[in-house]
Amino acid sequence: MASGSEGDAVLDANDRFYRAFESLDMDRMAAVWQQDASARCVHPGWPMLAGWEQVGASWERIFDNAAMMQFSITDAEVSIEGAFAWVTCTENLTTVVDARVNEARVQTTNLFHKIDGLWLLVHHHGSPVM
Amino acid sequence: MASGSEGDAVLDANDRFYRAFESLDMDRMAAVWQQDASARCVHPGWPMLAGWEQVGASWERIFDNAAMMQFSITDAEVSIEGAFAWVTCTENLTTVVDARVNEARVQTTNLFHKIDGLWLLVHHHGSPVM
Repeated sequence: MASGSEGDAVLDANDRFYRAFESLDMDRMAAVWQQDASARCVHPGWPMLAGWEQVGASWERIFDNAAMMQFSITDAEVSIEGAFAWVTCTENLTTVVDARVNEARVQTTNLFHKIDGLWLLVHHHGSPVM
Repeated sequence: MASGSEGDAVLDANDRFYRAFESLDMDRMAAVWQQDASARCVHPGWPMLAGWEQVGASWERIFDNAAMMQFSITDAEVSIEGAFAWVTCTENLTTVVDARVNEARVQTTNLFHKIDGLWLLVHHHGSPVM
């Protein structure tokens, strides 16, 4: 597992992703991603989305349907190899949809690329914990 | 996406993982993994397992309870960064448990480390497609 300032920079990028998610703000979400053909995303229970066009559209759809989302991230671990990093973590998620509160746990792998000094999310894989 | 002989070497390692899975042979499965504390594994619907002790034990449990497993892998894509690679693919899975045939689709991210010239699986994340 990576430690030190580079590890912190990756965890900061991971945290920015979840704060963008909570904000339900598409511009903030887009800013944390590598917005090109290499972007990949698996939402819990979904097939894989490939390329920023599909990935970005999925976030728009999710944001349109969520009234409130709050993430508490636990067990975050980071590994770094050159300009590539991966984070595993558990998302402890509280959502409000149609005035109903739901609690869920999602097991997640997030992959990041460092581009021009910035760690950008290139693949998000979240899966339901049953 | 990576191509050429190094990409092929990673896809070969990915293929060895699924052939080991089908064999239900613990020695073959162990041989494809980085058998140390950095090993991570998320089976569909499970929380994350950390370290080879937990990961290996989970494969023993799965193999003890499966009579037959067959994988057809589609949409495999590989990216390489130095001694690190990740593969995304769809597992089209046929299982026989208690004489009952099940078909399922699993969306998967597999991460590999190159150690002493060999690509070893360090993280397998599979999630159910609903």
